[in-house]
Amino acid sequence: MSQTATSAQDFRAIDVIRKKRDGVELSRGEIEALVNGYTRDEIPDYQVSAWLMAVVLRGMTRPETAALTEAMLHSGEVLDLSTLAVRKVDKHSTGGVGDKTSLVLAPVVAAAGVAVPMISGRGLGHTGGTLDKLEAIPGFNVSLSVSRFREVLETCGCCMIGQTAEIAPADRKLYALRDVTGTVESPYLICASIMSKKLAEGIDALVLDVKTGSGAFMKSEKDAAFLAELMVETGERMGKKMVALITDMDQPLGKMIGNALEVEEVIEVLRGGGPEDLRLLCHELAGWMLQLGGAAATVAEGRQRSADLISSGRALERFRQMVEMQGGDPRAIDDVKRLPQAQHTMEIVSPGTGYLASVQCEQIGTAGVVLGGGRERKEDAVDPAVGIVLHKKVGDAVAAAESLATVHYNSEARAAGAKRLLEKSFVVAEAPPHSKRPLIHRVIGGNSGERN
Amino acid sequence: MSQTATSAQDFRAIDVIRKKRDGVELSRGEIEALVNGYTRDEIPDYQVSAWLMAVVLRGMTRPETAALTEAMLHSGEVLDLSTLAVRKVDKHSTGGVGDKTSLVLAPVVAAAGVAVPMISGRGLGHTGGTLDKLEAIPGFNVSLSVSRFREVLETCGCCMIGQTAEIAPADRKLYALRDVTGTVESPYLICASIMSKKLAEGIDALVLDVKTGSGAFMKSEKDAAFLAELMVETGERMGKKMVALITDMDQPLGKMIGNALEVEEVIEVLRGGGPEDLRLLCHELAGWMLQLGGAAATVAEGRQRSADLISSGRALERFRQMVEMQGGDPRAIDDVKRLPQAQHTMEIVSPGTGYLASVQCEQIGTAGVVLGGGRERKEDAVDPAVGIVLHKKVGDAVAAAESLATVHYNSEARAAGAKRLLEKSFVVAEAPPHSKRPLIHRVIGGNSGERN
Repeated sequence: MSQTATSAQDFRAIDVIRKKRDGVELSRGEIEALVNGYTRDEIPDYQVSAWLMAVVLRGMTRPETAALTEAMLHSGEVLDLSTLAVRKVDKHSTGGVGDKTSLVLAPVVAAAGVAVPMISGRGLGHTGGTLDKLEAIPGFNVSLSVSRFREVLETCGCCMIGQTAEIAPADRKLYALRDVTGTVESPYLICASIMSKKLAEGIDALVLDVKTGSGAFMKSEKDAAFLAELMVETGERMGKKMVALITDMDQPLGKMIGNALEVEEVIEVLRGGGPEDLRLLCHELAGWMLQLGGAAATVAEGRQRSADLISSGRALERFRQMVEMQGGDPRAIDDVKRLPQAQHTMEIVSPGTGYLASVQCEQIGTAGVVLGGGRERKEDAVDPAVGIVLHKKVGDAVAAAESLATVHYNSEARAAGAKRLLEKSFVVAEAPPHSKRPLIHRVIGGNSGERN
Repeated sequence: MSQTATSAQDFRAIDVIRKKRDGVELSRGEIEALVNGYTRDEIPDYQVSAWLMAVVLRGMTRPETAALTEAMLHSGEVLDLSTLAVRKVDKHSTGGVGDKTSLVLAPVVAAAGVAVPMISGRGLGHTGGTLDKLEAIPGFNVSLSVSRFREVLETCGCCMIGQTAEIAPADRKLYALRDVTGTVESPYLICASIMSKKLAEGIDALVLDVKTGSGAFMKSEKDAAFLAELMVETGERMGKKMVALITDMDQPLGKMIGNALEVEEVIEVLRGGGPEDLRLLCHELAGWMLQLGGAAATVAEGRQRSADLISSGRALERFRQMVEMQGGDPRAIDDVKRLPQAQHTMEIVSPGTGYLASVQCEQIGTAGVVLGGGRERKEDAVDPAVGIVLHKKVGDAVAAAESLATVHYNSEARAAGAKRLLEKSFVVAEAPPHSKRPLIHRVIGGNSGERN
């Protein structure tokens, strides 16, 4: 093994590793040389993994985090959408259970005249992924070329695809290494990973939905807020309008979990129905997207605009247009039975009479993965039809033997595994819970949002 | 990259990395599985380097350190010297400048009837290596087979060789990885590396010479004592008699630095001469080796024995026998001009009159490396003839323009580089230094040494 495994003149990876190990701040040049050398296969995995572990345990300063984000961003193509006359805004969620807001937001915001160039990911751990949900629509293609992405965006104002090989290759390589070296869990590395990909979309503004609670990666509000501040500051340093909403993930969002089921619930919302928490969060996020995108003077105005675009049917129309342009079958929108349907259902019933006091949100997400709706390993295929329909939200009254959830499944063995998890996931108490967790815990950044 | 890059049933390297990252104590089984999996190339470098960095930053408990040492020890052959009726004792130094005690100690202790099966290393950084010094003796072979090692040991009571491929292969692989990933500097990893190799020699007792001061790897006495305690406890857990002496390395040991020059000084000491500090340290270390080896009731008795074996010439005779059996030219012992000689010499003179107040010991060692006496890279060859002869020890009176050191060199360019370093390495003051640093700072372990 050579200490000088990079071609850059004065740069030695070992020096950067040692500095980070000893808590010394790295320069922008050092971080760039490390990221570029790794992307070009000039620095070996074993040096970068040692550096990543040092970052996990030593942390990073704000300038280091910004330098890492920028180096990762510029490791690949940064879309130039300046020919689109409108502002480009995106939303990113840190991941939750039943979180399908992206599918509602893209058409709503596009219908208001703000472009949404959305590059999303697949399911990770116990959480679902936007791409897996979109692919539940028969024919929907998330692998468009950049030129087709631009065309769809120009025509219908929104387009939703997966990461391309050209976008932030450093992140793809680093993420694969972090995944197998215990170095995923660092707010600095998470920030750089998310922001490098999102900023490659050529956006003007970004709304972050940072989840907190038992179903989120960041269980505590403190950790969620720390990551949110880091991302807002990093984006602002790069000249983007930024806001982060810390939102609740102590129970699943909405009532449906599973790829086709979640598309069904998205269509309900776009038709003006759907569960209250999901509707409220969509309007809140849309409000911010419209305000940062210049289509609403205030977030309140943006919220109202969002509601109007849904009740007028214009958002649904925009959704239909995007589905068609991306190869999906629009008939599935009018007849959700055309979405993949599971062969069997089974009820999870309440053990007693009282109130739903709390749920184990991550466990419910895991039950969805066990059913086949998510991935246990990266190479696994997902079953779009399976999932869970919740009948009660926390605080609701329940009767003994009343159904708490319906499991949609295709495999008895998988259903049995999910059932074991779900039966441990609901706490029914005699009295209703003392306090209700807010849907929106905190707003970070986006200072001008309410005042303008 | 796969998370399950090892064949062991329930073992996943990623889990062990995460635990160490989070400060959770690892079990013996987990550490064994990691070391064995790595030695067998079943766990990739990039996972082990992340784990090593977590160890550097999180540390290890005593049981973890012992488990790591044992796993590394048992990764290869452990010599069985039980057929030798006498006790087997070795000494290990953490490395210093001018530290040639091993070459004196092996024949002294052997002459007292205690076997010394010594497996040594090469120069590292600014410090010299025993193997490089031995190879300055024309013909001396440090690469003996295990059977020949045993023969030499049985015949003359001591044998000095380099690490074989069979001894602690896990350490060789881990050390190469640590060297390029900034994970050398951990007392736990240093302890396991040293102890796994030394315990593979089949010894009953080990005397550790842990250096402290400006020329040592552990600059502070606190760090040196911490490493010493760790090694003593680890050895004792494995049933070995252990003692560690924290000794001074704030100035070079003795007066000669450089491979052939150090052999010359060793012969001086074995003839009853040599610099006082080197003689005293040799007697002290020999005293402990003889006491732990059962050839002396007390360390004081061992010290006296050492002095007697030198003044009687029996130690030198033993040295001559070992040199002959290992292929070296014994005539070089009687006529040191037969050792490699540098072509040129140059004086480093005192800038003023007064007292030698202090020296930059590491810098003097580096000057020796610059001359060609050590290695800048692992693959470099050493020049046995070059080196530095010091004429003053700290506290000595010096006159302006008097020589502080003579540089023995073969290359003008290298000599110029060494001169620049050496001219910055001596501090001459008007008054003598207030206090003298002790030669032996502290003794750790070896409880019975003085009392028995």
